[in-house]
Amino acid sequence: MLQEIAEQPAVLENTIDAELEKVKKLGHFLRGREIDLIVLVARGSSDNAALFGRYLLEVTTGIPVSLSAPSVYTLYNAKLRLNRAVVIGVSQSGEGVDINQVLQSAKNSGAFTIGITNNSDSSMAKIADETLLIHAGREKSVAATKTYTGQMLHFYMLASALADEKIAFEKIPQFAAQSLDLQDEIKTLVERYTFMENCVVVGRGMNYGNAYELALKLMETCYVVAERFSSADFFHGPLAIVERRFPLILFAPAGATKTSSIDLLKRLQELHADSFSITNDAQIAELSSRRLLLPKDIEEFLSPIPFIIPAQLFAAYLAEAKGINPDEPRSLSKVTRTI
Amino acid sequence: MLQEIAEQPAVLENTIDAELEKVKKLGHFLRGREIDLIVLVARGSSDNAALFGRYLLEVTTGIPVSLSAPSVYTLYNAKLRLNRAVVIGVSQSGEGVDINQVLQSAKNSGAFTIGITNNSDSSMAKIADETLLIHAGREKSVAATKTYTGQMLHFYMLASALADEKIAFEKIPQFAAQSLDLQDEIKTLVERYTFMENCVVVGRGMNYGNAYELALKLMETCYVVAERFSSADFFHGPLAIVERRFPLILFAPAGATKTSSIDLLKRLQELHADSFSITNDAQIAELSSRRLLLPKDIEEFLSPIPFIIPAQLFAAYLAEAKGINPDEPRSLSKVTRTI
Repeated sequence: MLQEIAEQPAVLENTIDAELEKVKKLGHFLRGREIDLIVLVARGSSDNAALFGRYLLEVTTGIPVSLSAPSVYTLYNAKLRLNRAVVIGVSQSGEGVDINQVLQSAKNSGAFTIGITNNSDSSMAKIADETLLIHAGREKSVAATKTYTGQMLHFYMLASALADEKIAFEKIPQFAAQSLDLQDEIKTLVERYTFMENCVVVGRGMNYGNAYELALKLMETCYVVAERFSSADFFHGPLAIVERRFPLILFAPAGATKTSSIDLLKRLQELHADSFSITNDAQIAELSSRRLLLPKDIEEFLSPIPFIIPAQLFAAYLAEAKGINPDEPRSLSKVTRTI
Repeated sequence: MLQEIAEQPAVLENTIDAELEKVKKLGHFLRGREIDLIVLVARGSSDNAALFGRYLLEVTTGIPVSLSAPSVYTLYNAKLRLNRAVVIGVSQSGEGVDINQVLQSAKNSGAFTIGITNNSDSSMAKIADETLLIHAGREKSVAATKTYTGQMLHFYMLASALADEKIAFEKIPQFAAQSLDLQDEIKTLVERYTFMENCVVVGRGMNYGNAYELALKLMETCYVVAERFSSADFFHGPLAIVERRFPLILFAPAGATKTSSIDLLKRLQELHADSFSITNDAQIAELSSRRLLLPKDIEEFLSPIPFIIPAQLFAAYLAEAKGINPDEPRSLSKVTRTI
């Protein structure tokens, strides 16, 4: 897992080099069609990447996005009206049975289909009208890291190709490399969380998917019971469970979500609750019990990839501190064949 | 909370009597327009009702549904292409600031807007092109119960008015009354969970929203850390956190999700994990460590309301067993004003 985390700047760079022209052409083609809706279909970490993609695509392109409920197709055999939709399947292996079933069903309903996958020979690549490849090499760890950020990168390239304004995603590999510099600091920091059994992970907007992703990493590699929420939803109920022994981990970049992060951190201080922020804002860092500080010049729209990397390192080192091998989570397998 | 739970059969009956004609007319009007998309906007319990609404509407009408991310509008000021969309806000009080902001923005973008609320004088009722009222009377408990099922009922009436096939939702108030008969059994059952600190709540398809709703109830009224998952996603990571001391609560009706419930229960038995099912299927009941058995004649499509009522009772009695007043959760207020 640690090795695959470290490969990410190179994987991102390679993926841009190999795929950008294809994504630009695809964007040009799609802009010539009448598209009313983008549907994203995924499970697990890929679904967390899709949750990010949802915000990015809606905000930058103005096209409404729906995160698909695969059961609608696979259990209830619904045929949706998708003739003006683009349906994007996201799967590391390209072999998620239910995801591919949704893609096939959408294609039959007249949708244009795209697959984002790490495997060019997969069933997904055969079904989709167009395949966007992550150039990550084989991902051996059960915990997805480099394919998660590779999937996010494809959403950046696609959004940039569909939107009127370009997104400066070519800066991301460099930001990702800077995030890896926090490695030693994180290794020291995890000591404090060695016996943590529960936590809450919070993010909002562009970093909402990252909250789900870190929670999943903590569950699968550290057996920490990690709840995940939007800071907006957190005041609807879940706030009641916060206690001193129950740290709240926050993705809190400078930018649009800053006010809401600060409100939450102040409320946590009143409740004497423990907080840990991944941030690039001095005021947020100051209000947090613990923090990892990233470079100020990372704009919020570009923060999700550089912000998840310290979180991946945190999960990997915490597993080590807990005496667990993060590459072999109990009860899990790499490819999950849901039907 | 207990009193409001008990009022539900009457609230459901009254809401059908008062609103059905209006919903039928609305359905007729909407069937005459070209609708490509339904967007649902809500937070908290209302968002859990919307999660149910999403499955019901997609499966019965074939119109794709998107669960809105309010931040897209409120933090990032996105203007989405919604001229062929129906946007439905769901809010008990009708005063959720961000929900109303999304409704207003959608209306400005040319969407037809609907509000589902318990308050005819609310800001939501003033903004929406059409208001569907829950006839619940005032809901005093912070934990929503009768307005949650009232919102679900409106999705049934709306789906029935939009779909080609009718749905037999008029049976639901009677099923709801039968669910209340489990009261004494539940009061005894909660004893076993008095010192439960963590649990996982699982549901799928039509009962997926119920899994979120019970988890929220357990967090806000019992301070139990309740994770919520689809049984499909549960094999992607979260399964690793299941332990003997960590019960899994399952909404498991007979019907389309039965096979997946049985697979999960068998896997839990292998792991020696504890399970508690709300079910109307003998085989599922047999495979569970504990169960609440509902009438066999509740079809899966009609199960969500009769299945959430025993869960509401479970949360209310468990709070009592834990010595907590469920009507006054610490740190929470009834109306949450997110921006």
